[in-house]
Amino acid sequence: MSSERILSIYGPGLLGGSLALAIQERAPGVRLRFWARRESAEVAIRARGIAADFFTNAIDAAAGASLIILCTPVETMAEQAAQIAKAQLAADCIVTDVGSVKGRVVQELTPILGHRFIGSHPMAGSEKTGIEAARADLFQNAACLLTPVAETRLADLERLRSFWKTLGCRLLEFTPEEHDAKVARISHLPHMMAAVTTLAALRDDPAAVTCVAGGFRDTTRIAGGDPGLWTGIASANRQALLAQLKSARDRLNELLHFIENADDVGLHQFLTEAKALRDTVPPPGKS
Amino acid sequence: MSSERILSIYGPGLLGGSLALAIQERAPGVRLRFWARRESAEVAIRARGIAADFFTNAIDAAAGASLIILCTPVETMAEQAAQIAKAQLAADCIVTDVGSVKGRVVQELTPILGHRFIGSHPMAGSEKTGIEAARADLFQNAACLLTPVAETRLADLERLRSFWKTLGCRLLEFTPEEHDAKVARISHLPHMMAAVTTLAALRDDPAAVTCVAGGFRDTTRIAGGDPGLWTGIASANRQALLAQLKSARDRLNELLHFIENADDVGLHQFLTEAKALRDTVPPPGKS
Repeated sequence: MSSERILSIYGPGLLGGSLALAIQERAPGVRLRFWARRESAEVAIRARGIAADFFTNAIDAAAGASLIILCTPVETMAEQAAQIAKAQLAADCIVTDVGSVKGRVVQELTPILGHRFIGSHPMAGSEKTGIEAARADLFQNAACLLTPVAETRLADLERLRSFWKTLGCRLLEFTPEEHDAKVARISHLPHMMAAVTTLAALRDDPAAVTCVAGGFRDTTRIAGGDPGLWTGIASANRQALLAQLKSARDRLNELLHFIENADDVGLHQFLTEAKALRDTVPPPGKS
Repeated sequence: MSSERILSIYGPGLLGGSLALAIQERAPGVRLRFWARRESAEVAIRARGIAADFFTNAIDAAAGASLIILCTPVETMAEQAAQIAKAQLAADCIVTDVGSVKGRVVQELTPILGHRFIGSHPMAGSEKTGIEAARADLFQNAACLLTPVAETRLADLERLRSFWKTLGCRLLEFTPEEHDAKVARISHLPHMMAAVTTLAALRDDPAAVTCVAGGFRDTTRIAGGDPGLWTGIASANRQALLAQLKSARDRLNELLHFIENADDVGLHQFLTEAKALRDTVPPPGKS
């Protein structure tokens, strides 16, 4: 991190804001920049006590930076990359992102940025959005999935690893395609299932909400996430997500079969297998 | 509560233990009793600092008590009720329970205990089990669903309401059938969906667990619950749960249709409706 003289964050939302807060705390020598589409974003950044140079011009925000992090919706990253490619980039400049999909992003950004682009995906977030919800400890103990490709230079990869470690992440590395299959399973599927459960429970009887307890609250929490953001993610990872949702339908049909046929032995086995797998999930803060 | 001279809890598990801890804290004048099937349970009760008279005879544990609370699995409650009916009961003795289903319980216990039995269902729990996980504040701010019937005496109902209010519950009242439909929706459905999501995500790729983040963790938390307990609940509330699971399958098919057909407008609408409904859930501790 000490070598990152200028770090430029594109998109001052929950993730971009949390990155800035974490960097201020853990790497105080770094000079921060923010790029946002709208001038009005600067007020919100200042309100969080972040000392950063502010740009609405995506070329100027990139000039001379050693690390550029795209914290914008995945469907707009190619547009920003095209601007970044026009800038006077530092010789050792790396560009990364925090997007939830990698296949499409790597495919779109590599032709524009070449070996400089290496995908990152810190598995941290919230159903809340915006810099108002940003937290300096958002990345602490989070898994961060990196997706180096054949063209990636080892020195760049090492610098990127070191950056995320500074923020408290534990690192995993996958090809972009492996990454998309994993997150379809672990992140995009649960998101969609939370929406399915919410609609199944409340669409026909919204008043049932008076009875909710911790189980419903936790199982459906992420259904409160931003619909636009998640439509973009699902759209960018359609095939992998589809496979997972079909697998969920198969499991649901398996369960329905046990319950319809009063097969309590089958149901007990189903729930026992689910518990055994759930019990392998490390508690928060443990890797 | 001041009128509850002797309060007898059947079943020293998570709920029974939490009840005892809460009563010790909030109604210190009450004399507590515990009934358990096994002698060995007494050690665990003492280890939690609970001062209670201990019984393994279900008749003796009931004699003279003003309030008896069944905190045993729903499928064994009729057996305990039959013993309780043989005891020298106090004239004003009320029997209630904390079971997750009410149709079957009320149907089985009313012929044995008559108007004395009034069903209760505090919507509080944990994926953890046993008195080791008991907490004095488990019922604070929890919804408690009461299911009085035509034979219920108003004075008894008022005493039962007052008891749960003392523990910090907010009360709702339903017929046993309405209760079962509500909890199938709000509690039993999410439990089964957590198991479905866990199996869909991890059965084919248990190693994907290294990538989990908060979304997966919350969405699947309750899949770590006791398989035996939940098989009993599902079995006792089969029809209402089946209706909810079929509704979940319909919603999942709706979602699959949008994703298969790249219908991002439909998907956005689906997620927006889910978010709007999820946003009506009061935060923990608010009613």
